[in-house]
Amino acid sequence: MQIRPSGHVVLLTDFGHRDPYVGILRGAVLRANPRATIVDLGHEVPAQDVEAGAFWLWSAVDRFVPGSVFVAVVDPGVGTPRRLLAAQAHGCYWVAPDNGLLTHVLAGDDSADVRLLDPEHLQLVPASRTFHGRDVLAPVGGWLSGGRYGFSALGERLPDPVRLPEMTAGSHRVVHVDAFGNLITNLPAATAGNFAAIAVAGRQVAVHGTYGEVPDGEMLALVGSFGFWEIARNGGSAAKLLGVGRGAPITLVQA
Amino acid sequence: MQIRPSGHVVLLTDFGHRDPYVGILRGAVLRANPRATIVDLGHEVPAQDVEAGAFWLWSAVDRFVPGSVFVAVVDPGVGTPRRLLAAQAHGCYWVAPDNGLLTHVLAGDDSADVRLLDPEHLQLVPASRTFHGRDVLAPVGGWLSGGRYGFSALGERLPDPVRLPEMTAGSHRVVHVDAFGNLITNLPAATAGNFAAIAVAGRQVAVHGTYGEVPDGEMLALVGSFGFWEIARNGGSAAKLLGVGRGAPITLVQA
Amino acid sequence: MQIRPSGHVVLLTDFGHRDPYVGILRGAVLRANPRATIVDLGHEVPAQDVEAGAFWLWSAVDRFVPGSVFVAVVDPGVGTPRRLLAAQAHGCYWVAPDNGLLTHVLAGDDSADVRLLDPEHLQLVPASRTFHGRDVLAPVGGWLSGGRYGFSALGERLPDPVRLPEMTAGSHRVVHVDAFGNLITNLPAATAGNFAAIAVAGRQVAVHGTYGEVPDGEMLALVGSFGFWEIARNGGSAAKLLGVGRGAPITLVQA
Repeated sequence: MQIRPSGHVVLLTDFGHRDPYVGILRGAVLRANPRATIVDLGHEVPAQDVEAGAFWLWSAVDRFVPGSVFVAVVDPGVGTPRRLLAAQAHGCYWVAPDNGLLTHVLAGDDSADVRLLDPEHLQLVPASRTFHGRDVLAPVGGWLSGGRYGFSALGERLPDPVRLPEMTAGSHRVVHVDAFGNLITNLPAATAGNFAAIAVAGRQVAVHGTYGEVPDGEMLALVGSFGFWEIARNGGSAAKLLGVGRGAPITLVQA
Repeated sequence: MQIRPSGHVVLLTDFGHRDPYVGILRGAVLRANPRATIVDLGHEVPAQDVEAGAFWLWSAVDRFVPGSVFVAVVDPGVGTPRRLLAAQAHGCYWVAPDNGLLTHVLAGDDSADVRLLDPEHLQLVPASRTFHGRDVLAPVGGWLSGGRYGFSALGERLPDPVRLPEMTAGSHRVVHVDAFGNLITNLPAATAGNFAAIAVAGRQVAVHGTYGEVPDGEMLALVGSFGFWEIARNGGSAAKLLGVGRGAPITLVQA
Repeated sequence: MQIRPSGHVVLLTDFGHRDPYVGILRGAVLRANPRATIVDLGHEVPAQDVEAGAFWLWSAVDRFVPGSVFVAVVDPGVGTPRRLLAAQAHGCYWVAPDNGLLTHVLAGDDSADVRLLDPEHLQLVPASRTFHGRDVLAPVGGWLSGGRYGFSALGERLPDPVRLPEMTAGSHRVVHVDAFGNLITNLPAATAGNFAAIAVAGRQVAVHGTYGEVPDGEMLALVGSFGFWEIARNGGSAAKLLGVGRGAPITLVQA
């Protein structure tokens, strides 16, 4: 099934804001489709942190307009023979290096269709060996957003894209620490069982509905906006108080 | 009087750039109005600092296209019974939590019209208790920008929105320190009286027209671009040199 | 020859993201042309660093849609008699203070046309002495993007815009350090001669094709995406390892 492009191109990178790279990427999208609407998902994925980038992309599923084109560039393998791919999933297009960035996006859609990008076939001979986001991924994203290429014309099906472990696989743990200091876990909101608290870093943090239910400075466990359980501190940073980061193990404490 | 929407949705948050939250907020606006033009006022209001957010919004009055919709999310009370509101003021729409963010915007327009947002009535049952910016404010902003709702259909008039002290009320003081280290005061450009200097942190800083009128490294008091007196340092940071921040008292030194 | 505007206004500033200035600049462009598409080249040029801003602008040449209008605000001389200018070069428009920001843009186009902006003639009496980006440059950029003014109607030809030394003039050196820690030099990719390594900070760094050709943590010299030689470290920061920054001298080591 062909997805009708919305004209939105949503960008995710680890480029930060201190260099011209994000701007140049925007330019490359617009050169491929001058009428595209650029939307920034974000550019402060930690440098070369594919696992973090995969979390960001997962968080964007179903949060943008159907037919949006996501262009994701977290690409430590640039210039090596690592593949580039485009996917159709969740009613949107996704363009990225084949390094696991799309793991959680693809895991959530059984009918996802993944294609291998062949720059030569697309007449996109990369002008560099270090910035394929600009040279290949952005033009492909721009073209998809403007309907210049049908998705299936981009390349052959790719049966085996690189996959990271799924987010909810393995032990319960912190999968993201946000700038407010909230610890986002991989424990889905709908987790079965009657638990009264979550233990982390040797402390038991009691379950509440929202921040304001505990006094200022107190900690709480709550269902957050990602649809996962989080550990937070009202009016402060749980991460700083506990001194923990991504990957920290958590356990459920029964009522 | 109905304001004709310009299609611009102007975003202000304290989310920073290190998380997917701003991107997701943009997506929520676009899902409500795929043709909206997103404009970032800024996202680095200090975390949960409603007073700073109110300053940012005040600084945007009359600086965007008439009919713009401002969506402001600095919301430490999210999930508690604090209200959400929409306002029509200065020829634009403003959507925000009812925590004082709109204080200075409303203070400047006697004919401002403020409405209480009732998410249930708007069929916006929040999907979370922690991100009403995404779940309520962004969709309302998107709808207003696309003309889907007339303003007065949003909800009942709210006679008593939360108000912070007005910016020019109380003592003369620094109300914002910018990234260049300029100290923006709450002393309007048009302040009457003949003064030759402003005293701050035990120093007298002489009045000049602009930076280049004093030698490199020297301090000066001048009327800044916000329309208020500022204390600056040519080619350097006044804030660092003086070691003062927001709230620092100032006094006028007569000629 | 008249350039047909694309409707894109590309912004470059040293404002950072911690103040309302970038947002207000966007608003000023939109007030001049509500249908403009704002594109951020970037806003984290180091404060008042004209040389760095000139590098950013140079990096954007031929990277955006023909007919784009660049508005560049790195303006330590604001409020002094320094001039403001608009240029037509490389198929785009460029609006900036006359302080050398456009040095490399103009150097690359022999048919560049530079005009002196006369705010009074344009009926743009600056509302401030500290933010001519907002008061003059943004409106001019917005007008150009919407075709309200033909370029040549903006003002008289300016024969002698301020010029910095050209990037490839003088000694071989580091001209930009990116956030990944790559050292971008002023040595063009096409540099003649057979060299096997680049020496910097007392070390010889061998030439390779791309990051992945050396073990993790090792350094390499390679042609980067700017079209210049770079010194990099696979999976790490060359800048941190070597402790060098912009301006560091480099020398070629013959094979």
